Amino acid sequence: MKTEGLIAAPFTPMDEKGNVVYERIEAYYDFLEKNKVVGAFINGSTGEGVSLSQHERMKITEHWTARSKQKKSVKVINLVGGTSYVECIENALHSAQNGVAAIALLAPFYFKPGNARQLAEFCARVAEAVPQLPVYFYHIPVLTGCNVSMLDFLKEAAPIIPNLAGIKYTHEDFMDFLSCIHFMDGKYEMLWGRDENLLSALVLGTRSGVGSTYNYAAPLYYKLIEAFDNGDLPLARNLQQLSINMIRLLGKYGGISTGKAYMKYVGFDCGEFRLPVKNMRHDEYKKFAEEVRALNMAELFSKL
Amino acid sequence: MKTEGLIAAPFTPMDEKGNVVYERIEAYYDFLEKNKVVGAFINGSTGEGVSLSQHERMKITEHWTARSKQKKSVKVINLVGGTSYVECIENALHSAQNGVAAIALLAPFYFKPGNARQLAEFCARVAEAVPQLPVYFYHIPVLTGCNVSMLDFLKEAAPIIPNLAGIKYTHEDFMDFLSCIHFMDGKYEMLWGRDENLLSALVLGTRSGVGSTYNYAAPLYYKLIEAFDNGDLPLARNLQQLSINMIRLLGKYGGISTGKAYMKYVGFDCGEFRLPVKNMRHDEYKKFAEEVRALNMAELFSKL
Amino acid sequence: MKTEGLIAAPFTPMDEKGNVVYERIEAYYDFLEKNKVVGAFINGSTGEGVSLSQHERMKITEHWTARSKQKKSVKVINLVGGTSYVECIENALHSAQNGVAAIALLAPFYFKPGNARQLAEFCARVAEAVPQLPVYFYHIPVLTGCNVSMLDFLKEAAPIIPNLAGIKYTHEDFMDFLSCIHFMDGKYEMLWGRDENLLSALVLGTRSGVGSTYNYAAPLYYKLIEAFDNGDLPLARNLQQLSINMIRLLGKYGGISTGKAYMKYVGFDCGEFRLPVKNMRHDEYKKFAEEVRALNMAELFSKL
Amino acid sequence: MKTEGLIAAPFTPMDEKGNVVYERIEAYYDFLEKNKVVGAFINGSTGEGVSLSQHERMKITEHWTARSKQKKSVKVINLVGGTSYVECIENALHSAQNGVAAIALLAPFYFKPGNARQLAEFCARVAEAVPQLPVYFYHIPVLTGCNVSMLDFLKEAAPIIPNLAGIKYTHEDFMDFLSCIHFMDGKYEMLWGRDENLLSALVLGTRSGVGSTYNYAAPLYYKLIEAFDNGDLPLARNLQQLSINMIRLLGKYGGISTGKAYMKYVGFDCGEFRLPVKNMRHDEYKKFAEEVRALNMAELFSKL
Repeated sequence: MKTEGLIAAPFTPMDEKGNVVYERIEAYYDFLEKNKVVGAFINGSTGEGVSLSQHERMKITEHWTARSKQKKSVKVINLVGGTSYVECIENALHSAQNGVAAIALLAPFYFKPGNARQLAEFCARVAEAVPQLPVYFYHIPVLTGCNVSMLDFLKEAAPIIPNLAGIKYTHEDFMDFLSCIHFMDGKYEMLWGRDENLLSALVLGTRSGVGSTYNYAAPLYYKLIEAFDNGDLPLARNLQQLSINMIRLLGKYGGISTGKAYMKYVGFDCGEFRLPVKNMRHDEYKKFAEEVRALNMAELFSKL
Repeated sequence: MKTEGLIAAPFTPMDEKGNVVYERIEAYYDFLEKNKVVGAFINGSTGEGVSLSQHERMKITEHWTARSKQKKSVKVINLVGGTSYVECIENALHSAQNGVAAIALLAPFYFKPGNARQLAEFCARVAEAVPQLPVYFYHIPVLTGCNVSMLDFLKEAAPIIPNLAGIKYTHEDFMDFLSCIHFMDGKYEMLWGRDENLLSALVLGTRSGVGSTYNYAAPLYYKLIEAFDNGDLPLARNLQQLSINMIRLLGKYGGISTGKAYMKYVGFDCGEFRLPVKNMRHDEYKKFAEEVRALNMAELFSKL
Repeated sequence: MKTEGLIAAPFTPMDEKGNVVYERIEAYYDFLEKNKVVGAFINGSTGEGVSLSQHERMKITEHWTARSKQKKSVKVINLVGGTSYVECIENALHSAQNGVAAIALLAPFYFKPGNARQLAEFCARVAEAVPQLPVYFYHIPVLTGCNVSMLDFLKEAAPIIPNLAGIKYTHEDFMDFLSCIHFMDGKYEMLWGRDENLLSALVLGTRSGVGSTYNYAAPLYYKLIEAFDNGDLPLARNLQQLSINMIRLLGKYGGISTGKAYMKYVGFDCGEFRLPVKNMRHDEYKKFAEEVRALNMAELFSKL
Repeated sequence: MKTEGLIAAPFTPMDEKGNVVYERIEAYYDFLEKNKVVGAFINGSTGEGVSLSQHERMKITEHWTARSKQKKSVKVINLVGGTSYVECIENALHSAQNGVAAIALLAPFYFKPGNARQLAEFCARVAEAVPQLPVYFYHIPVLTGCNVSMLDFLKEAAPIIPNLAGIKYTHEDFMDFLSCIHFMDGKYEMLWGRDENLLSALVLGTRSGVGSTYNYAAPLYYKLIEAFDNGDLPLARNLQQLSINMIRLLGKYGGISTGKAYMKYVGFDCGEFRLPVKNMRHDEYKKFAEEVRALNMAELFSKL
């Protein structure tokens, strides 16, 4: 059964010194739930998984799953990917013990797999350690530098990763994406990973996306999906344009860390990003907040 | 009034020695017309404009416009872009004298404009030589190496290129594309240039595309557009998948020159591509033709 | 017999409207001669060959060769490369008629040759039109986008381009460069094309370089070569560092067009670069000139 | 006092299952010492640091330092770099406790620092945890994707990283490299990291290199350095060409893992590389070994 709805990639709450504030995670879960988000893709790019220690990633997982065991409304997918399969396996086993709904893997991003076969073999090595868990592959070549076609990956992975569930696809190759949707009669779940282009993926048949802006603007995207489902394309396009206007401020104010500025704006402050990511200064935040207000989309942000 | 329908980027008919066969152009025009193609984007990438001499490009223009003056069904857009504005202007003036419907410009691709302002100024220099002609910008960063955002380009170009009509957009940045569609209340015509992703552009509101596969598979795409307009998305997706399957053979058999192999296959042989483009060998063509037959889409190819 | 000494890639003298000032070319020839420059690589990147029309390139050639026939001190190499072999051949034939010492070819830079064989075949098509002329290949992947290894190119070109004389190598792959120097017992002349790294190429055995800074700082490099030949490496390194300091201002003030600012500084004004290249503003030139003065290398610039 | 001589980046010895064979490390130390290698840059690219767990990296450090405490001939530099400064600090502290001679840091390679300042701040965060230890920065943009100029990095790092000792420079930007050599009167040690271009770096003044081929061909490079120091450039060039011929087989047989095939060839078998790196098959090894024999350089390989 495939996911229907938005999966947020949560930020990792931190204090002023850059330490993880684990105890905010339960409230984060409730915040997502309240905004009808159906999944939390934790320890991902947005969650700064690579900037955390293995120990921190595990503790974060424990807090998310503590809540998901109670509530079940938001399913937890844990990105255990990295460059060392030894550490990925360790992390995957811990995820399984703690009751995540699924794990996700990343292409190793120092030594890059040269082809789909190598990538599939690397993933298989981790996936076979948790045969009972669904496994997603997280395709984000702009950060990993691994540009393997996902259709080729599925062809290689299908026979050797029986617990492969699908792909979080964060790349603009819609030709490859549609081919993956159709592969093996739609066996694999294709989760779209570019919030600014969701409409162009919906028309290809996806029913779910994973993204960072679903943390703070879930209502916008649920309206967009509704408009699309109703065949009201002009409305859907205008909502997508609003999403783009919002996302353009990410680039303008320094990139991924602006996401935490949006969280502060909507009232769920998660602190700042760790180095090497740069955060905006206090005076920049003021200008940023003015620009956000000028977007005039208060009712489209997530509610506390 | 914006274009509705497919614009083909014609191949340049050549003989076995690589000389242009000008006298086939009139028949080519009729072939496009018969398949309801509404425009011919000549001397473009598909037309090997950069591999031709200025003299050849002009003679090709003369043959296309000779026919368009008689028939008016297929409008002729001539790519006059290049690296020297002196030659672009010379070519633009010749185009105007011969009655093209519009010209198109390309980002200079040796010295690459570093920002939107420089690109707009280069284009303005040519556009102002033919103030009566609509001018399209042809955005194809994978070949030109010029990655300027088209939204930024429109902002710079709008005040200094009054005859700017729109953009042929051959790039997968749908966020930028939608922003251009919405720019100045939709003033500019946004022609989609990636045939394999047409569906994802239709949903954003484009009503026309420019591409090479519209030369030989126009019926496929007209069915796709019709399905989309009727809200029959499963059919539209299946047709887009067929288009992808067809396009995948381009990559498999050596790239852009495979387009001429498709032309041979559908019965309108245009010879081969000039060096430095590589053409498939005779025995490879046989295998290629078998694979095309196996696509089982005879009725979706253009008809002689 | 191989070249010994510096080959300048001349700028194209232009007036304020961007028209070529052909009549300054003879004085330019004498300027190079006076500074012991042994060759002029005309219509290259520095000469804005791609921004000129074919007609302009030819007229420039005529002016350079008019002088070289009288004086013979500076040999003229004409870059006839481009994307269309038809125009390259036309240009090569004109070069031969006008008595250039050699021509040079460029990798076609719109459709990029995918491998060494295709590149060699493209070059052969032009070279065979002028069998009596030495032909250089100009390797500058940062501008052409063609990253073929030159060792592979030589292997493919050697049997099919009998008049291949060597390579102008403008790329930092010293492993490939040294392999080319040793190929076929040093048959091919390897001209180094990165002025800022000349010392690292001299140690590998090259005896000549082609560059833009040899237009205005030939004495600096002749001293560097002399120091290297005398085994005075600390001096050679300091001179190379001065060259780097000088070249760093190119980047700081906008790139290639800063070369013309240097020409103005040393007293041989060639005007500005054509669009799409950006030139510095008048007030920027003042700051630039101050920074050049602060380099304290007056005696190392070329003399009028 | 700066390093004089070769620093090897050791491979990590593994058994057939890909487990680390720690007990071979002492013999590895002696092998390097016997071949006059003066340093071991452990847990680097060659050592598959990113493919190991933190625990494995630490245990490897313990084995190398166990021997260096006894012998002191080969100094141990430990790469503690990664994407999480928390784990880097943990590793750096462990390195200090175990008596390494120095640590090295890498640009974080998932979120890439956008400029020199961010990179320096990231490094400072780790370096300040071990103020008594010399710190090298390991510059290898082809793997990290961080293309910051090292001159800019030194300018930012000098005031905030007092224990910065120098840079392992694995990139072909000789202009930047020479500028770093001259920065602050040569304060920082510049270790060259491209074995195939060592000669072009020696002429710029470096006296040491860090590389993988110094593991198995140290005598070749010591002869090259000797020839250079004696002013016998033809011999130095021929030896560099031999090094290139040897290194070209790395590319031909699959890249970095071919280094372990060379180790097997010279008699110090370290097993294979972990996934995602691909290793050659047994039958490929036979062909590889033949090609190595044909290089005819037996006496230039390291001796057991």
